[in-house]
Amino acid sequence: LARSKRKRVRRILRTMHPAKIASLLETLTPLQRVAVWQQIDEPHEAKVLAHLSPTMRDELRREGDQDGLDDQDDQGQTSSTKTLADAAGESKPAVQTQLRLVLEALEAGKLKRIARLFRKLHPARIAGLLESLPAAQRVVAWDMVDHERAGKVLRHLHEEVRRRLAAEMDLDDLVESARGLEPDDLVDLIQDLPAKLGREILLALNRRERERVESMLSYDEESAGGLMNLDQIAVRAEISVGTLLRYLRVLDVLPPNTDKFFIVDRKGRYQGILRADRVLTARPETSIADLMETDFEPVSVDQPGEDLARRFEDQDLISVPVIDAGGHLLGRITIDDIVDLIREQGERSMLGLAGLDEETDMFAPVLSSSRRRAVWLGINLLTAFLAAGVIGLFEGTLEQVVALAVLMPIVASMGGIAGSQTLTLVIRGLATGQLVAGNARILMLKEVGIGVLNGLLWAVVVAALSILWFGQWAIGAVIGVAILLNLLCAALAGVVIPLVMRRLGIDPALAGSVVLTTVTDVVGFFAFLGLATLVLL
Amino acid sequence: LARSKRKRVRRILRTMHPAKIASLLETLTPLQRVAVWQQIDEPHEAKVLAHLSPTMRDELRREGDQDGLDDQDDQGQTSSTKTLADAAGESKPAVQTQLRLVLEALEAGKLKRIARLFRKLHPARIAGLLESLPAAQRVVAWDMVDHERAGKVLRHLHEEVRRRLAAEMDLDDLVESARGLEPDDLVDLIQDLPAKLGREILLALNRRERERVESMLSYDEESAGGLMNLDQIAVRAEISVGTLLRYLRVLDVLPPNTDKFFIVDRKGRYQGILRADRVLTARPETSIADLMETDFEPVSVDQPGEDLARRFEDQDLISVPVIDAGGHLLGRITIDDIVDLIREQGERSMLGLAGLDEETDMFAPVLSSSRRRAVWLGINLLTAFLAAGVIGLFEGTLEQVVALAVLMPIVASMGGIAGSQTLTLVIRGLATGQLVAGNARILMLKEVGIGVLNGLLWAVVVAALSILWFGQWAIGAVIGVAILLNLLCAALAGVVIPLVMRRLGIDPALAGSVVLTTVTDVVGFFAFLGLATLVLL
Repeated sequence: LARSKRKRVRRILRTMHPAKIASLLETLTPLQRVAVWQQIDEPHEAKVLAHLSPTMRDELRREGDQDGLDDQDDQGQTSSTKTLADAAGESKPAVQTQLRLVLEALEAGKLKRIARLFRKLHPARIAGLLESLPAAQRVVAWDMVDHERAGKVLRHLHEEVRRRLAAEMDLDDLVESARGLEPDDLVDLIQDLPAKLGREILLALNRRERERVESMLSYDEESAGGLMNLDQIAVRAEISVGTLLRYLRVLDVLPPNTDKFFIVDRKGRYQGILRADRVLTARPETSIADLMETDFEPVSVDQPGEDLARRFEDQDLISVPVIDAGGHLLGRITIDDIVDLIREQGERSMLGLAGLDEETDMFAPVLSSSRRRAVWLGINLLTAFLAAGVIGLFEGTLEQVVALAVLMPIVASMGGIAGSQTLTLVIRGLATGQLVAGNARILMLKEVGIGVLNGLLWAVVVAALSILWFGQWAIGAVIGVAILLNLLCAALAGVVIPLVMRRLGIDPALAGSVVLTTVTDVVGFFAFLGLATLVLL
Repeated sequence: LARSKRKRVRRILRTMHPAKIASLLETLTPLQRVAVWQQIDEPHEAKVLAHLSPTMRDELRREGDQDGLDDQDDQGQTSSTKTLADAAGESKPAVQTQLRLVLEALEAGKLKRIARLFRKLHPARIAGLLESLPAAQRVVAWDMVDHERAGKVLRHLHEEVRRRLAAEMDLDDLVESARGLEPDDLVDLIQDLPAKLGREILLALNRRERERVESMLSYDEESAGGLMNLDQIAVRAEISVGTLLRYLRVLDVLPPNTDKFFIVDRKGRYQGILRADRVLTARPETSIADLMETDFEPVSVDQPGEDLARRFEDQDLISVPVIDAGGHLLGRITIDDIVDLIREQGERSMLGLAGLDEETDMFAPVLSSSRRRAVWLGINLLTAFLAAGVIGLFEGTLEQVVALAVLMPIVASMGGIAGSQTLTLVIRGLATGQLVAGNARILMLKEVGIGVLNGLLWAVVVAALSILWFGQWAIGAVIGVAILLNLLCAALAGVVIPLVMRRLGIDPALAGSVVLTTVTDVVGFFAFLGLATLVLL
């Protein structure tokens, strides 16, 4: 009881009378006692202490004092080393200090200290800290997050971690914390949870909320529909600025990122936008029709997120209206979700290059990590055996000139590096839409040109070094020619492979480099050993 | 004259009398004539035509009509295939269609068509199109950008392309178009230009502008100071909402991304923020002191951009105030610059992995691209020779068992893949600040665990395949053990190398993978060939 579900213990303790808690504490072993003590809310501490026997009271108070002292220590250190400039924002040292504090507190079992730290931090920061913790400690720390804020923290976690921690929660807590989320974040959360949990959350919503969320669940997570929120402020063009202002005053707090209002007609069809700053600077009697802009292009609900991100970036937008095929205003997309999307895309392309596209949790269990990575290793093994097969063709040659075996990895490796340089450029060009049939040929010519220049340069260098090493002119000549050929071939492959993959509907960022290294390995070994067979034997 | 500097031709033509242009046109060869004709502004066309001889008039008019027809064609196609949903924003197909149009127009020499397209597009889109063009065509298309908009286009170009195109411009044009930029964008531009050009632009500004820009030039491009803009609206806490509104009405148009106003004291020291939507919903007589938030943390001018990006992301911000060490409000940073920063960081880390960190121009001249890439190939060559040296130690063994030469790349390649998976995770952990001394050990244990599991799995698979291939149990045993060892070593190296590099102040994202593959190659070859020497001989 005392270990597994700390949150539950806390909740129970909160409903118990101080005297009862006190007697409970007295029945526990000292270790359990301290653990339970760490779960008691601070305002209750004094009351509980009053009911305890004197020795125990001193013991636990000392426990608490230490905490207090530690805290003061922290603050002392902080304020003394803290200049005004330091205080500005959460610089990285601060993040790492927080992480260290949490790790130390976990080590020492001072859970209260973690709860106190968490209460001072932004949910996104808490999410970051939780992701930095190994799985077991993460669950412990997660229990110290107030459950009113748990939903917001979940929202900021990466998919994989989010799923794990949500599964740790009591269903009631989960539902309750989910209720505090905005619809778009709630949709994200439900999409990441097991279907059963998601359904439970849906059922806990009232009918109107449920219908909204369900309609949003039908869109692809990374399309405009999946990114949109429903908190837009839509008004009719006929009203005046004064009327709008009165309406806004009734709302009191505007949704975040409200830089524009949307104008709709009687049937809810999108007509244009009204920038919020126009409202600030306009006279109350002005009609909205005079201030609105009708040439602001809305976003269609099925537009892919990638294009949206580019538009936000290019046009420096804060929010855009989303419409359906009939032109009805459905919702809006705000820059915060676009920023998350851009960051995720960046991470995914980096992880994808190493075949880790789903590994968002640094501390995922060993077994599931192993399984996922094994796939990539297996694919690589196939290509490695292919290259080995090519070498196998020339066993006879290798037996006679063993120097070839020593030098052959050099040819393959130079080709691989040169090819991946070209590949990276082409993948980026495809991702930004800057590469089409019309300029691909010119890019290929350029890359081949680079291949020739660098091929010649390194052919001479490697040939010279090889002659120095083995004292055989013929080996130098063979390796030089092989490197030139392989660099040329790498340039061609670097351009052609991603273009072909794109046409076949395969993401070149994921599979491109495997195919490329296979090509450069095979060509490298074949050219080098083949030439050697012709020339040396 | 007619070829090299089209912009100049256009300017001259604009100042000439239509009759003079007409007689000029009559003296030119037909090809030149069409080229010059393409430079005449549309409003002038009719006047010039009136002065031409009838045959020539028909000829050029046909030229123009074709253009018009083509245009109608385009529009016909567009509107027929265009649904309301399509029209929403610039989806990728549209981008690629535009690019194709530009390429075709360049091919056909129909420069007017490009100018007309550019006039309809957002500067960021024009920048994207220009970057997609090969160098020679890019200069031609660049000349078709109206010089009033050239500055804005420059702002959206990548550093390398920007520098080249700015160098193409007449100094006057450059200065003139630079003047239309906001201070922070202007600072960016000057930082990327050769020092001489930058100085010329500075001299062309008036004293107040120059002082502002100069003070901003002193900050690091990617620190808060380098990212900040000076267009913030700062007010004193004593005034009322009504006074603020009157002030805003005088300004009429607010700076973009104004989601909050900044409160300063008499000496310009930062006091807090006032959200723009609070102004919308407040009554005019309210004092700003009642609405302001004093707990919003400002950013110090020397804070690194990376931390800022994380804060914007975590807290969904639109703008933050920037202060100096004395707490004075200097400026503000807005989300648009942060989005650019995040995108650039993502691109840089992807390009950096292939040693291309400075290659932002897909169509950079062959020679300069070759030179930059040669560096990376050279570094790789050193490590390849190191690996070859290890193989060289075992020449004797290879001579006797040539199968080893066939299989040895497999061991090295599996280690390289496994290591780069670990490396990628650790680099990401370091970049996000989620990896510190306190949890690195646990991560290492986890990675070693994965290494053991995957090592065992693939050791068995590779051993079995090798035995099938070569029919020798001993070879299977040797390669199995070597793979297990190399995967373990790869896991350790993947964690340790980036941590050590970080401590030495080297960016692991740039150099990590080279060092890692060196380690896995060396260990792989050494373990495999060394074991084979012990067991097989």
